[in-house]
Amino acid sequence: MFSVEMTVRDYECDQQGIVNNAVYLNYLQHARHEFGRSVGLDWLELTARGVNLVLRRAELDYFQSLRPGDRVRITARPFRKGKFRFYFEQEILLLPDEIPAVKALMTAACVIDGKPAAPAELDRWFGPVS
Amino acid sequence: MFSVEMTVRDYECDQQGIVNNAVYLNYLQHARHEFGRSVGLDWLELTARGVNLVLRRAELDYFQSLRPGDRVRITARPFRKGKFRFYFEQEILLLPDEIPAVKALMTAACVIDGKPAAPAELDRWFGPVS
Amino acid sequence: MFSVEMTVRDYECDQQGIVNNAVYLNYLQHARHEFGRSVGLDWLELTARGVNLVLRRAELDYFQSLRPGDRVRITARPFRKGKFRFYFEQEILLLPDEIPAVKALMTAACVIDGKPAAPAELDRWFGPVS
Amino acid sequence: MFSVEMTVRDYECDQQGIVNNAVYLNYLQHARHEFGRSVGLDWLELTARGVNLVLRRAELDYFQSLRPGDRVRITARPFRKGKFRFYFEQEILLLPDEIPAVKALMTAACVIDGKPAAPAELDRWFGPVS
Repeated sequence: MFSVEMTVRDYECDQQGIVNNAVYLNYLQHARHEFGRSVGLDWLELTARGVNLVLRRAELDYFQSLRPGDRVRITARPFRKGKFRFYFEQEILLLPDEIPAVKALMTAACVIDGKPAAPAELDRWFGPVS
Repeated sequence: MFSVEMTVRDYECDQQGIVNNAVYLNYLQHARHEFGRSVGLDWLELTARGVNLVLRRAELDYFQSLRPGDRVRITARPFRKGKFRFYFEQEILLLPDEIPAVKALMTAACVIDGKPAAPAELDRWFGPVS
Repeated sequence: MFSVEMTVRDYECDQQGIVNNAVYLNYLQHARHEFGRSVGLDWLELTARGVNLVLRRAELDYFQSLRPGDRVRITARPFRKGKFRFYFEQEILLLPDEIPAVKALMTAACVIDGKPAAPAELDRWFGPVS
Repeated sequence: MFSVEMTVRDYECDQQGIVNNAVYLNYLQHARHEFGRSVGLDWLELTARGVNLVLRRAELDYFQSLRPGDRVRITARPFRKGKFRFYFEQEILLLPDEIPAVKALMTAACVIDGKPAAPAELDRWFGPVS
């Protein structure tokens, strides 16, 4: 499964001394975009062409706080349901033991000119319509 | 219902020209903490005393993108289930028409010395055990 | 002088319990952009047209830490030197006593197609070439 | 000289498609804190003991915009003047050619119980009083 590794930085933590819950959304987005790059379909390039992948729903379960210096692996498993609903199942795993810190299910839609769309190139991210 | 109002700032937006999805978590947290202040029970003061309110689950539905200069109202309706599970039902409403931009359900737990806790003072936030 | 007022939010503070030094740059940018809007020349609209105002130098003196709930006024006084060098002198003042928290001098350049530029519309921000 | 390497993430960029100027402060702080760890004197641990290293002045010259995916090296060269004034000279270098993107001089002070201080342990960061 696709994943990226990174280290928690001090400035990502709040007064509880742990990564602020909003920062996890940054981490998860980073992994999704890196996944996109890995298959040669860049989120930024899509955006520049007016193909907007937007988040419709985010579900996150927080299991384990993260602290400065923690090393994490962030996974991104894309899949789709029907033509227009795109998903990423994701985890943030605390290394080296891969302890789940966050599990997430992200639901996205593709919007072109304000309307739902499913250009064929998205098959490279999410697979073909099954 | 408790709510705060604020205006979207340019630096909160990303290359799509809309508020980045992680920033909504900041907005929602801000409203929860302001709610806490409004009933005289400060999140920071709790944290300083070792009473950690931590997020266990976040569910967000994104309905409407927000753009720089947009004025929003963010609500926070706290409730609890049983002794140890605390919730906030929240909305981000685009003003002046109160169009829902985000609806969220946040599940929290209270942790003292690493263990689930339910100090009586939290009744001021979430009501008594029903 | 142009200014905006805002309140420090919990999530802008780090483990020292004070506003992280990077966040002041956000505050200052926000005031500059709001100044732009106040004279009818929007930074975002300029950017969309390929007129990029970019920061060349930032000087910040930090006098006073800011804490959650602090109310601040942020000023922005634009001026220019010659045709191509644009400046903002800015302050972040802790209210109600207007205690200086930060004093800043920001130096900007205007770049169109990668080259220094000084379109006449910028006179509305920075005044005419003296 | 001490340095860390990292890659620009999409969410650090704003509507101009480049790293927002405030984010550079995060990068620079990250390098300073990692330097601290490298000599066994952790900023967070200092903070927890009431030894607050706070920024007094930041000077940044921006030479080159950074874009998503750019690989950078961030340096941190600490030095001191007299007993109480601590400095970091820093650079953000665009790899692989080490093109300077930002040059910065950060001035810090150490504050204990609200008063300037210079505990001997800081010699490990900044060297002895010359």
